[in-house]
Amino acid sequence: MALGSGYAGQDCSLARALEVVGERWSLLVVRDCFFGVRRFSDFAAHLDISRAVLTDRLGSLVEAGVLRREQVAGHHEYVLTDAGLALWPALHALAAWGGEHAVPGAQPYRLFTHDRCGGRLDAVGRCAACDVVPAPSEVVSEQGPAPRRGRDDAVSAALVGPRPLLVPVR
Amino acid sequence: MALGSGYAGQDCSLARALEVVGERWSLLVVRDCFFGVRRFSDFAAHLDISRAVLTDRLGSLVEAGVLRREQVAGHHEYVLTDAGLALWPALHALAAWGGEHAVPGAQPYRLFTHDRCGGRLDAVGRCAACDVVPAPSEVVSEQGPAPRRGRDDAVSAALVGPRPLLVPVR
Repeated sequence: MALGSGYAGQDCSLARALEVVGERWSLLVVRDCFFGVRRFSDFAAHLDISRAVLTDRLGSLVEAGVLRREQVAGHHEYVLTDAGLALWPALHALAAWGGEHAVPGAQPYRLFTHDRCGGRLDAVGRCAACDVVPAPSEVVSEQGPAPRRGRDDAVSAALVGPRPLLVPVR
Repeated sequence: MALGSGYAGQDCSLARALEVVGERWSLLVVRDCFFGVRRFSDFAAHLDISRAVLTDRLGSLVEAGVLRREQVAGHHEYVLTDAGLALWPALHALAAWGGEHAVPGAQPYRLFTHDRCGGRLDAVGRCAACDVVPAPSEVVSEQGPAPRRGRDDAVSAALVGPRPLLVPVR
């Protein structure tokens, strides 16, 4: 936890959660993990942040048990742990709120559907067609209708989709 | 939006949401609004933050359309707008995650139940007993089993509960 990022006086589960993922950029790193980003260089290119900030955030998320760092064929990969995967409802709900209430024109940047039936996920991540709440591994993501400035990194290109969450982008 | 709190390069609904509520303390202010806190002095006492920071966060949330500032009998009150109320699934999901994965012993600080049937809310805010996702106005909150350092402000005392969300603490 970075200096000044705690909420020591708050007896509150939300405060504890924010101590883990409330740091600037942390939830966007976790978002990228759900999109299948695993390599340092891919996070760096897609998030467009300094290597120092990215190193700090990845390290904090590993230390907090949200990510696991794995050695794979000569490089490292960062993969969501079970605790990290359990962030899906919070992350999806916040993104759904953003698409509805914080994007001009209320057009989502990204659409999430249930792989089995193609139903759209609602504000709480429940499939509007079949009423179950799919695990992230059962969710398909694709680019939504919101106007984009556009990014030309390899991750952004892969994420046009549709593609399932969690499948490595490469 | 405070300097350096934007994510200009990210075409992402989550980034837009974090520009509104990702600032340090902002989600805890919104949490207190769900608990029925409405007055500046009550936020200040319960959050234990400086008046300058609180003024900034309340101002940003009003400007973003999450809160509405109302004149009531000689003082001001801050009340959730419809966009603010729509943050409930995200806020609950993040708190539920914190209680499960970020609190020592995985004991929640707070329990949320469906007013009609008393069922506990699950990780996505769905009633485990009757399977509906109650609106925040149908949710009852009470102190959970997590050990507390304890606070002696009036808001903390009122929130021992059980009490319905959104009902003004005074």
